[in-house]
Amino acid sequence: MQIGFIGLGNMGGPMAHNMIQAGHDLLVFDLSSDAVKVATDAGATAAGSVAEVAGSAVEIIITMLPAAMHVKQVYQGENGILAGVAPQVLLIDASTIDPLSAREVAAAAQEQGNAMLDAPVSGGTGGAAAGTLTFMVGGEAADLERARGVLDVMGKQAIHCGPSGNGQVAKVANNLLLGITMIGVSEAMSLGVTLGMDPKVLAEVINTSSGRCWSSDTYNPFPGVMDNAPAARGYSGGFGTDLMIKDLGLATEAAKQVGQPLLLGALSQQIYQGFSAKGQGQLDFSAIIKNYRQEE
Amino acid sequence: MQIGFIGLGNMGGPMAHNMIQAGHDLLVFDLSSDAVKVATDAGATAAGSVAEVAGSAVEIIITMLPAAMHVKQVYQGENGILAGVAPQVLLIDASTIDPLSAREVAAAAQEQGNAMLDAPVSGGTGGAAAGTLTFMVGGEAADLERARGVLDVMGKQAIHCGPSGNGQVAKVANNLLLGITMIGVSEAMSLGVTLGMDPKVLAEVINTSSGRCWSSDTYNPFPGVMDNAPAARGYSGGFGTDLMIKDLGLATEAAKQVGQPLLLGALSQQIYQGFSAKGQGQLDFSAIIKNYRQEE
Amino acid sequence: MQIGFIGLGNMGGPMAHNMIQAGHDLLVFDLSSDAVKVATDAGATAAGSVAEVAGSAVEIIITMLPAAMHVKQVYQGENGILAGVAPQVLLIDASTIDPLSAREVAAAAQEQGNAMLDAPVSGGTGGAAAGTLTFMVGGEAADLERARGVLDVMGKQAIHCGPSGNGQVAKVANNLLLGITMIGVSEAMSLGVTLGMDPKVLAEVINTSSGRCWSSDTYNPFPGVMDNAPAARGYSGGFGTDLMIKDLGLATEAAKQVGQPLLLGALSQQIYQGFSAKGQGQLDFSAIIKNYRQEE
Amino acid sequence: MQIGFIGLGNMGGPMAHNMIQAGHDLLVFDLSSDAVKVATDAGATAAGSVAEVAGSAVEIIITMLPAAMHVKQVYQGENGILAGVAPQVLLIDASTIDPLSAREVAAAAQEQGNAMLDAPVSGGTGGAAAGTLTFMVGGEAADLERARGVLDVMGKQAIHCGPSGNGQVAKVANNLLLGITMIGVSEAMSLGVTLGMDPKVLAEVINTSSGRCWSSDTYNPFPGVMDNAPAARGYSGGFGTDLMIKDLGLATEAAKQVGQPLLLGALSQQIYQGFSAKGQGQLDFSAIIKNYRQEE
Repeated sequence: MQIGFIGLGNMGGPMAHNMIQAGHDLLVFDLSSDAVKVATDAGATAAGSVAEVAGSAVEIIITMLPAAMHVKQVYQGENGILAGVAPQVLLIDASTIDPLSAREVAAAAQEQGNAMLDAPVSGGTGGAAAGTLTFMVGGEAADLERARGVLDVMGKQAIHCGPSGNGQVAKVANNLLLGITMIGVSEAMSLGVTLGMDPKVLAEVINTSSGRCWSSDTYNPFPGVMDNAPAARGYSGGFGTDLMIKDLGLATEAAKQVGQPLLLGALSQQIYQGFSAKGQGQLDFSAIIKNYRQEE
Repeated sequence: MQIGFIGLGNMGGPMAHNMIQAGHDLLVFDLSSDAVKVATDAGATAAGSVAEVAGSAVEIIITMLPAAMHVKQVYQGENGILAGVAPQVLLIDASTIDPLSAREVAAAAQEQGNAMLDAPVSGGTGGAAAGTLTFMVGGEAADLERARGVLDVMGKQAIHCGPSGNGQVAKVANNLLLGITMIGVSEAMSLGVTLGMDPKVLAEVINTSSGRCWSSDTYNPFPGVMDNAPAARGYSGGFGTDLMIKDLGLATEAAKQVGQPLLLGALSQQIYQGFSAKGQGQLDFSAIIKNYRQEE
Repeated sequence: MQIGFIGLGNMGGPMAHNMIQAGHDLLVFDLSSDAVKVATDAGATAAGSVAEVAGSAVEIIITMLPAAMHVKQVYQGENGILAGVAPQVLLIDASTIDPLSAREVAAAAQEQGNAMLDAPVSGGTGGAAAGTLTFMVGGEAADLERARGVLDVMGKQAIHCGPSGNGQVAKVANNLLLGITMIGVSEAMSLGVTLGMDPKVLAEVINTSSGRCWSSDTYNPFPGVMDNAPAARGYSGGFGTDLMIKDLGLATEAAKQVGQPLLLGALSQQIYQGFSAKGQGQLDFSAIIKNYRQEE
Repeated sequence: MQIGFIGLGNMGGPMAHNMIQAGHDLLVFDLSSDAVKVATDAGATAAGSVAEVAGSAVEIIITMLPAAMHVKQVYQGENGILAGVAPQVLLIDASTIDPLSAREVAAAAQEQGNAMLDAPVSGGTGGAAAGTLTFMVGGEAADLERARGVLDVMGKQAIHCGPSGNGQVAKVANNLLLGITMIGVSEAMSLGVTLGMDPKVLAEVINTSSGRCWSSDTYNPFPGVMDNAPAARGYSGGFGTDLMIKDLGLATEAAKQVGQPLLLGALSQQIYQGFSAKGQGQLDFSAIIKNYRQEE
């Protein structure tokens, strides 16, 4: 299939590699020539502009951009995708942005005859390389079926979350909960260990009890509990604290717009923010346990 | 085996029933004659006082009391267990109390030659009836082995958490995390649904993603998501909000004593407390989602 | 002096009245004809557009708009103020918006030779009518002196807070603290009264002790303590909860941009948001004490 | 007047000095011989035990002890005050403890014919030396009048807060609010300065606006704003963070007992607790602003 890919970032390189390996033709554009080089080294063709990608004979265009303002500009700006794209090209935005913006852009696309999916991704650079990403997809089910051939070579699942914007809703809700549970595990593990428990034993108890969660059984923040979690490598790699702050910011902003309180969510955002303010924003978000551990 | 059982409460009846069914002889004492009757109807013998139980030819005494002050009184008070019990009788306190008090009482028991285990229980009245309770056990491993014959007829597992008091530490740490994740799930589910997602779909996404936790995949608080959770029956039964407040109080009190901050834990305690103050303390703690749902 | 006034809202009417009483000529524009009528009834002249105000022979233009996006549009949009205003006209934005947006607009104004002040106002509609508003002013001191003749007829003080944007900074910092202290007073008064104190006596003790604050000694939220606070009239009038949510939103948003944590501030925002979600957003923000009072 | 004084601590020395200077005879007891020496150097007589003080011909006994358990022991223990004191001796407990314990002890005193006042004190060691303490007094008004001759030489005011225990209620409510406002000022000042304001100017604006509070206008935590606040001397002296944690602990504990939520209060307690856990518990509580200031 002919695929356009705009906005590569750190994850775009491995994603492009996987698509090319699966036999797709890739036309890529990114402001960073380094990011483009990773993709062209893997066999992609470089385009000179968003407009060139939009105007070429692609069947699908995938975008992955840092924030809503970039998404709006790339789609709706002068010389943006919508200005040049042929009808029937399927548009997939894999950025993580707020649901309302995603719905606005999708509505604009639909107005001129292009189906659009929001498909934020989870799994990080590791998942991108391994092809085990999860896509949370908002839009028409039929459009998701058209996209599966591409999404399936990059990820292990693409979940249909409902109409436009719902992929973003699912991601923001999931990551809100993730941000909270990680601090919860940090508090519970730190307290238990300070009170005299062995961290591995405590994690085992929790993982077979009602406190069980992904943050405790798959990504435990306490050093020494798991060999393959960021805690085992000084909290490098993984999902950066500053990215968690961004996602919690999307959650609290969306909550404000719909008049919904988020007591633990908003407090969690501030706790990560205070941690980042101390220069730790690049560490994996599970490093938040350092806030609670006196020796560190 | 000859077993003494002091402090039956709601769970003691079914626990006694299961022990008697397994062939044990039970001598019970409780201030409530109703609670005693449930046990004697199941085949237990009633004792007239704590001292009578302590002075009889039992091999194990199990206690299950509301708070640390009762435990101290029953064990260390005039006419308490320690005043009359024969050496070598194994003492098991299944109450949920603070770890420091548990260690104090265990040390007093040990001084006069009685081994003691702290073995707080989770699983609720349902688990007590079904014999699927979990015991989190602090004390000597050898003493736990002596107790297994009895614990195993009441529960599905008895986890050794380390020396005296560690059963309480494990329980307090687990329930701290549970109290936090339940509010986290309430915030995430409420936000996602308000933003347009179907609650069942959202729960499915979360349960296969990094937000996954027992509060979402086993005990989801959103009405309509699970058939067998308290949310499906108006939040009746289950684990009462006031019990969660008690456990979070044990966590924040223990944290204060060891100088450990619990930001989300303390805030969660207050959120449940505010909910209880509005007359909802008897509802299952997952009813806290009502705080976040505008229609309710 | 010839003055243009764009964006009247609820407070613009009395402000216009005071300026006209002081002998100024007023040319006003607002999208709401009702708001315009209040001003023209007081002696102002109505303009048909922003451009008409900008193009007329005024010495000062005052704007007072709901949010940053309106300010940007009115100043920087096509047919906006900057497109048509003569150099040397002093621009005063009395809106409450985020400091960064205020600085952007001021920089744009300066580029084409217009001095601009940000001058958010506190004191509410009551202060507008009485002419006792406070203006917190960012910009050049000399420009503030040029504006004093006008600001002084509307308010009792105009404080110079530093360069462009600092008026907004001062307002956002003050209202952040106000939002927190009001909840603090609500918690302290509710707890003290529940524990057996007379509310008036408790307020007196606090007001002569280290808990003293404007929220306790001038605007006490407990009913019966003060005759002239919103608590004495069912929390009507005053400073609406939804406006406090807006201001706390500006604070947490600005804090996120500069990587500063706001633990109590963010939690306070959510507490007001939860209160508003229950349909109370129109009540004065001191009504937040209802969250803590069981009888209400 | 003949006065017994039990439990001197840091403040008892200067308080004893002031009483002796005013012509009173003082019989003192403390477990620390250093503390006793300060008082005897000032002219007091040392007693060998609580019982000796209780049994001597005093008209008033003042106690000032670290926590409720000490108060109960000193009054109600074997050889405690109530076991030996003559009827009509007025008992004044100047300790800061929870209201319920204060009421219990006062009721026990009253049962055997001794009037008792709870009179927790604020003002710190500085106020003790200068004789400018504030006493918040619970008990009968007539008993307070009997005590005024003594209290007035130690403090600048003794406020009648209502019946027994209400002195403690007033103190706990005031200090709850104080603990919150200090963090509120820390957040507001830090945010404002990070956004570009001069700290002195920001404090001036706040102090004449609705954010005004004792923590900003009398005890501002931002270095450089006030010459005589702890911030000007590295946060030494003043009211220690660990004492604030104790008082907030009394507030949250009392709130739990009466089923009252304290969202900001409980979170504030944890914020101070986290600060103390990093080894800063001896600093004045206004040092909490260090949590928010990146350069520190």
